[in-house]
Amino acid sequence: MSSRGSGEKVLVANRGEVALRVVRACRELGLPSVAVFSEADESALHVNEADEAVNLGPAPAAKSYLNIERVLSAARETGATLVHPGYGFLSERADFARACEAEDGLSFVGPSAEAMGRLGDKAEARRLAREAGVPVVPGTDGVASPGEAVGAAEEVGYPVMIKAAAGGGGRGIRVAKDEEELKKLVREAKREAEAAFGDGSLYLERFLADPRHVEVQVIADSRGNAAHLFERECSMQRSRQKVLEEAPSAALSPETRRRMCEAALSLVETSGYVNAGTVEFLVEGSGPEEEFFFIEMNTRIQVEHPVTEMLTGVDLVKEQLRVALGEPLGFGQDDLAINGHAIEFRINAEDPDQSFLPSPGTVSDLRLPGGPGVRVDSALYAGYTVPPFYDSLVGKLIVWGRDREEAIARSRRALGEYHIEGIKTTVGLHLRLLDDKSFLAGDYGTSYLETLLSG
Amino acid sequence: MSSRGSGEKVLVANRGEVALRVVRACRELGLPSVAVFSEADESALHVNEADEAVNLGPAPAAKSYLNIERVLSAARETGATLVHPGYGFLSERADFARACEAEDGLSFVGPSAEAMGRLGDKAEARRLAREAGVPVVPGTDGVASPGEAVGAAEEVGYPVMIKAAAGGGGRGIRVAKDEEELKKLVREAKREAEAAFGDGSLYLERFLADPRHVEVQVIADSRGNAAHLFERECSMQRSRQKVLEEAPSAALSPETRRRMCEAALSLVETSGYVNAGTVEFLVEGSGPEEEFFFIEMNTRIQVEHPVTEMLTGVDLVKEQLRVALGEPLGFGQDDLAINGHAIEFRINAEDPDQSFLPSPGTVSDLRLPGGPGVRVDSALYAGYTVPPFYDSLVGKLIVWGRDREEAIARSRRALGEYHIEGIKTTVGLHLRLLDDKSFLAGDYGTSYLETLLSG
Repeated sequence: MSSRGSGEKVLVANRGEVALRVVRACRELGLPSVAVFSEADESALHVNEADEAVNLGPAPAAKSYLNIERVLSAARETGATLVHPGYGFLSERADFARACEAEDGLSFVGPSAEAMGRLGDKAEARRLAREAGVPVVPGTDGVASPGEAVGAAEEVGYPVMIKAAAGGGGRGIRVAKDEEELKKLVREAKREAEAAFGDGSLYLERFLADPRHVEVQVIADSRGNAAHLFERECSMQRSRQKVLEEAPSAALSPETRRRMCEAALSLVETSGYVNAGTVEFLVEGSGPEEEFFFIEMNTRIQVEHPVTEMLTGVDLVKEQLRVALGEPLGFGQDDLAINGHAIEFRINAEDPDQSFLPSPGTVSDLRLPGGPGVRVDSALYAGYTVPPFYDSLVGKLIVWGRDREEAIARSRRALGEYHIEGIKTTVGLHLRLLDDKSFLAGDYGTSYLETLLSG
Repeated sequence: MSSRGSGEKVLVANRGEVALRVVRACRELGLPSVAVFSEADESALHVNEADEAVNLGPAPAAKSYLNIERVLSAARETGATLVHPGYGFLSERADFARACEAEDGLSFVGPSAEAMGRLGDKAEARRLAREAGVPVVPGTDGVASPGEAVGAAEEVGYPVMIKAAAGGGGRGIRVAKDEEELKKLVREAKREAEAAFGDGSLYLERFLADPRHVEVQVIADSRGNAAHLFERECSMQRSRQKVLEEAPSAALSPETRRRMCEAALSLVETSGYVNAGTVEFLVEGSGPEEEFFFIEMNTRIQVEHPVTEMLTGVDLVKEQLRVALGEPLGFGQDDLAINGHAIEFRINAEDPDQSFLPSPGTVSDLRLPGGPGVRVDSALYAGYTVPPFYDSLVGKLIVWGRDREEAIARSRRALGEYHIEGIKTTVGLHLRLLDDKSFLAGDYGTSYLETLLSG
């Protein structure tokens, strides 16, 4: 492992705002960066801002951003020594991490392929969590047949969720309210998982009606140092996609926070995990009844990492790169504290008035918010055409305040300054949420937003 | 004094980025805002962002922004209850503060006219400082004639500076190296001060060859609470104008910091000063030889206040408004700590290649920096025409890092992202300074930049 500046170069295997985020981190560390792009992204900002750029091929992600061989050859062509996968695309593909490891002189910025494989398998992750003493949602390790599922569900209790071991982001999840429905859904889910992931393994979990989704940011280096960076409240979701995230959680008790952060750290330590990751939990109840359950670990940087950065002052992407270079973490657990409150708003090119239909098109005018406590992570510029091929996230607005009240007042002010023409965005939805009583009270579970929008 | 939200309204008696800064603070506090503008500023951003706007008159400041009667009538017309003066223009005019005080139902956001008058008079401020036990540059209270000056200079020591009591921003300052030169310059200075300020009062001060300019931010409420918010290093100057500012000072010893902040607070307490202010010092020597001397107090918010905001998390402009509304400070001294390091870069519409000639014109393209640790306070937008009538400051970039090294690396990255076409700016000068050895070592006095530029 050579030191920074002596020939290290980072290929950023992603696009949009996260690619730009990684390029920024590279630049601050003095590491040259290589962008990759599809034919639809030739004029994207991440291409412009990186030191070099390689055309991967046609717009469909399978032919460019998801084409492992093409990404690796771009790394070879440019002499890259590190590959940062961002989030989405290849970021959780153990086969990609393994292919990077197999290349001479190339490191994957993330955990080992082996750790990713183990923690990316939901059933195996549950087993590891139990081993680390981390509470999990009552459920099974795996069910092979409808008959086995019925037996297991007796213990788990109805309603019960059927999940694909290889799934993610809510895909392939079904809820059965009784034995008959369970048998039918297990057959369906198995077929679907085989088709979608090439792996029909399923497991069951108790269905929680309206839990909160709270996650803990962790990071570990290759020298045995690990730290958690507190939690993020991510319950504001639509179609299982997070809409806004805040830290700290307004609902969590200090005692649950302490236990949850310790649990996350213990999972990292038990599994020998290295680099940044997120340990996701569901939380039910409040006060002395408050309970938390591990659900899964995301073995990559997440969309919502900036709220943690604003809260702690740590630059997580720079730390990821430093860890990949074999350097120690730039801080210890004792250096970290929750400073104020931060909220991230996902700016999606979608039309909230038309069921959040994607709204690609050309940005004819753009003026982004500024001033105190405002961070803009955005892939937009005036004249840029949002292509129709990818995720609709085009930017993020992250707002910090000394307390939640200030963060909310400032968010209202900053979103009000967001001036964009030519495409529809979710800015108006966020402004609506900032006046919503349940949001203001910090009292919302994962089903809250769907209910609000359908009401 | 009525409470927030019940009919309070803020007139912002300024333009450009500082007017926008105040509008943002108003919005976060739920206070309606009124912008004022000259005919040259009809399409300025502060006009667009405020809730209401009043045309003051023709472009020359004397006919609009400096026209006290016109500003007051705008306040009357719109039912404003508070006037925030920003910096520059009427912000240090005791007669303006007095005129506001004389209006029924109108409050000036700043100290009383009486306090402003006393502290704005440099000789009187020196007297107050000595009374508060604050060291001042060796010098005299006032000299009425060349003869009296010669006698006084014997005690102060040559070279000696001749300053106008009513001056500011470096105007009217002369340096005499001997008796003969002193007599000549006193006559000249007196004539000039009479012409410029209508007041020929002069005083002498020991000339410090290459001191550092370090200032302490203070704020006090009307209930007897006061706090300092640490120092800002402002030695990087050209023609006595600050170019960039950082906090904390990289050169100051912790012991000098402690004594200087205490001295600033004691001046506030002794003088019964209320609202935000800045106590300016010169610092000479280092280590055990380090000495600091009070030079003047600025009785208003300053251009460089954001570095302090990023360091402490305090929103100074909101605190100014809260204090003016009779509310207590939102924090105590013990709540404040130096968190990391912040640097502000003044973005001036000037051409560094042509002796910093103002460069007004139309901004044809604009892309501002973003990402972690970056704050943009800017009055620019694509298509905006910078008018030729006013100060050349068009925006500020403020960068935070966990330490000075990170702040500098991030600043280089962020300034590199600053993309502006149509006008010349000082961005390139800042990039040059970020690679300058003396800047990197934190080793620069007030004459450093001039020497660098002339070399």
